[in-house]
Amino acid sequence: MALRAGDSQAAMTGVKEKVLTLDTMNSSIRRVEYAVRGPIVLRALELERELRQGVKKPFTEVIRANIGDAQAMGQKPITFLRQPDLLNSPDFPEDAKSRAEHILRACGGHSLGAYSISSGIQLIREDVARYIQQRDGGISADPNNIFLSAGASDAIVTVLKLLVAGEGRARSGVLIPIPQYPLYSAALAELNAVQVDYYLDEERVWALDVAELRRALRQAREHCRPCALCVINPGNPTGQVQTRECIEAVIRFAFEERLFLLADEVYQDNVYAEGSQFHSFKKVLTEMGSPYAEQQELASFHSVSKGYMGECGFRSGYVEVVNMDAAVQQQMQKLMSVRLCPPVPGQVLLDVVVSPPAPSDPSFAQFQAEKQAVLAELAAKAKLTEQVFNESPGIRCNPVQGAMYSFPRMQLPPRAVQHAQELGLAPDMFFCMSLLEETGICVVPGSGFGQREGTYHFRMTILPPMEKLRPLLEKLSQFHAKFTQEYS
Amino acid sequence: MALRAGDSQAAMTGVKEKVLTLDTMNSSIRRVEYAVRGPIVLRALELERELRQGVKKPFTEVIRANIGDAQAMGQKPITFLRQPDLLNSPDFPEDAKSRAEHILRACGGHSLGAYSISSGIQLIREDVARYIQQRDGGISADPNNIFLSAGASDAIVTVLKLLVAGEGRARSGVLIPIPQYPLYSAALAELNAVQVDYYLDEERVWALDVAELRRALRQAREHCRPCALCVINPGNPTGQVQTRECIEAVIRFAFEERLFLLADEVYQDNVYAEGSQFHSFKKVLTEMGSPYAEQQELASFHSVSKGYMGECGFRSGYVEVVNMDAAVQQQMQKLMSVRLCPPVPGQVLLDVVVSPPAPSDPSFAQFQAEKQAVLAELAAKAKLTEQVFNESPGIRCNPVQGAMYSFPRMQLPPRAVQHAQELGLAPDMFFCMSLLEETGICVVPGSGFGQREGTYHFRMTILPPMEKLRPLLEKLSQFHAKFTQEYS
Repeated sequence: MALRAGDSQAAMTGVKEKVLTLDTMNSSIRRVEYAVRGPIVLRALELERELRQGVKKPFTEVIRANIGDAQAMGQKPITFLRQPDLLNSPDFPEDAKSRAEHILRACGGHSLGAYSISSGIQLIREDVARYIQQRDGGISADPNNIFLSAGASDAIVTVLKLLVAGEGRARSGVLIPIPQYPLYSAALAELNAVQVDYYLDEERVWALDVAELRRALRQAREHCRPCALCVINPGNPTGQVQTRECIEAVIRFAFEERLFLLADEVYQDNVYAEGSQFHSFKKVLTEMGSPYAEQQELASFHSVSKGYMGECGFRSGYVEVVNMDAAVQQQMQKLMSVRLCPPVPGQVLLDVVVSPPAPSDPSFAQFQAEKQAVLAELAAKAKLTEQVFNESPGIRCNPVQGAMYSFPRMQLPPRAVQHAQELGLAPDMFFCMSLLEETGICVVPGSGFGQREGTYHFRMTILPPMEKLRPLLEKLSQFHAKFTQEYS
Repeated sequence: MALRAGDSQAAMTGVKEKVLTLDTMNSSIRRVEYAVRGPIVLRALELERELRQGVKKPFTEVIRANIGDAQAMGQKPITFLRQPDLLNSPDFPEDAKSRAEHILRACGGHSLGAYSISSGIQLIREDVARYIQQRDGGISADPNNIFLSAGASDAIVTVLKLLVAGEGRARSGVLIPIPQYPLYSAALAELNAVQVDYYLDEERVWALDVAELRRALRQAREHCRPCALCVINPGNPTGQVQTRECIEAVIRFAFEERLFLLADEVYQDNVYAEGSQFHSFKKVLTEMGSPYAEQQELASFHSVSKGYMGECGFRSGYVEVVNMDAAVQQQMQKLMSVRLCPPVPGQVLLDVVVSPPAPSDPSFAQFQAEKQAVLAELAAKAKLTEQVFNESPGIRCNPVQGAMYSFPRMQLPPRAVQHAQELGLAPDMFFCMSLLEETGICVVPGSGFGQREGTYHFRMTILPPMEKLRPLLEKLSQFHAKFTQEYS
């Protein structure tokens, strides 16, 4: 293979050039300018910081007349839109009040109605950094590398936008697992990048195999420029939890092959199976030491939509970037500034999630009990799902080690496959549509996530309440048996 | 000029082909697929509707096991994240409680923590439609043509994404005003489309002149395929309010020239000048009758970030599309589904904004008083800004008829221009940076919005509180005088 840019420098200094640089990034994003939050506003932020630190200036406050942000300028929220006044309500526990005050002090105009800075409220990013540090056994996290977002999806698309560049054979390729979460295929299609499929091994509980990564990469290099590798752990839709050894192997592979790593870790709190444990890419990378710890580029994503809290509607999440080129990180900040800021109510919810009550807090006992109850019930549902499906002839379901989904494989009779093809439908779409029409059960066909040619799956959440889940699983299995008979 | 596609059909039937069709739209968006909210989920929604209407089915409820939406499946929000229980609180007025109940009943799992459908909660879209109908003197609005979004920016970018296609001379061009709000230039740069500038006439209070539109279009057609025309009314950063005659002329022009219209109307509640009135493009278009009313394609944007409420932090807004091709509208819905849903707290706030208290409601008097106070103060600030600036030698400010900004023109001495150029800065950026360093006043240079070559402006919001605004305006004017002297 021909030498790539940076290789000669790498040979001389032992330090590889970054994968993602101003030269390799999306040139359309480089051209973006957004003056309302441009250099002048960044300087205003610095001046505010200096004033707080006591640096003498010819003025005592910065007045931000740069942006149409009424509440930041002191306009009071309209009472009707905000009643009641919780901070003066006796119903609102004191620890919650002081927490709310703490967050409000970090908001423009002491209100959730003001824009925050584009990367998210500084105080909240600091709390997120502390949370990550605690999760990773003390490995430090820098708030400046944390960007809040409207759900993890928003952050994932932002990072993909930076990575995507080139035309023809130089077009960016991104390796994604198959089966995948279709945000990836959708974003890559929209960005006109190349989706490079690597297959998870269903026979080994959807294991991620480096030999398969190598195969996918080799074939992709014949027609595009693979620049990034995405891993979803715990898996969506597949529910596996990767071992530490696997993650180490993936990191070594990404480093050798010069791939930017995207770690979709939104299900990090959803691990159920005995013997399974979540290992963050950031922690493993750091513990692997040199050269990975200082050089491997990584973006790790998290969300408040999943976990024990399941607060999807608030659209809140974050990305932590590690070893990202500083100039590219500035470009990312600029890109995020165009959409002004992530929704502030979601930012606040994220803060409460990453700063749960301490054992000494009045809210601790109830919080802990509720959290454990949700996670214990999810674990029981994961187990039940696997069990009922595996008792059904023609359906085979891997253990649901984590996340919120089962992705069982099903046999479909040749006549059903043929009939589906006559209707212009994927066979598993035909099955799922028939299931919906007859039983009201809505699951998603495997073809929407990708699967090996000739295999058929569906994704079903494990979320329905326990008393509904068993009859649901049984009804689905019975329908499959009937469907199989009908088309045999 | 050569005949364009659709012209022959138009000649035969009198009906022009849509500007934006499956054939002309962004082909990358067409390729996007997102199974988690794909056809199977659309069918599930239909089945739910049919069940509600009493249609007999072999089941009594649809169980949505398609998406990881815990609260929609009945999981209770963690108390700690949601305390206190307002619906049982004596502090929460009864009309607010019943309104909250009304909205919660339309939410999955009776909770703001569940995803909504991608276009926004149906009940809220119906309330928005009623609001538009009332605004437009009874002209009906269809909730199915309304899509809620994370602020207007989100919706604007979505519509631009659909419009942008082609390479080289066939690349899409979008006409935008100069000065413009830089979201447009940023989005067009990101999407690799051609920004086609038309200049507003500063000498006539930033009037929009069809002759200038014609010039811009003619020149653009030499190197790209102009497909859309954007109007910002009331103007940002320029603060003008367009007359009804002007809007009619723009609509005729867009229709003749086959341009999709984007009407950025987020400041529709911010009109201050005597004799100025807001006219929505939708209303004018409809009242112009045939062929405009049935054929001219339009997207109109609104937001809760501006108006009297100024709730920027919630990131909430909507777009209403008019005469959009049905297949393209489906593509838009699909595209929006990839980001799952707009933030639900913002959707709820939008609902409260579009359904203000009725005169008989207990909250009416206070609401009305607060709203009028905010708008009256903004009007006074608009007047004061214009007045103080126009008393300053070397600064000239058009009347601020609406929106939230002044965009004064300033003279800069040649030596300052030269000095800025030596520093690699736009002259007005140099002025604004100097202003910030010396006074703490943060305003945005005109070069960030676009301006006629050789003219210099800055955008300053009229939002600082009254007691701060006058000293601020005077300080800025004094700084300009000193700056002028220093470089003369």
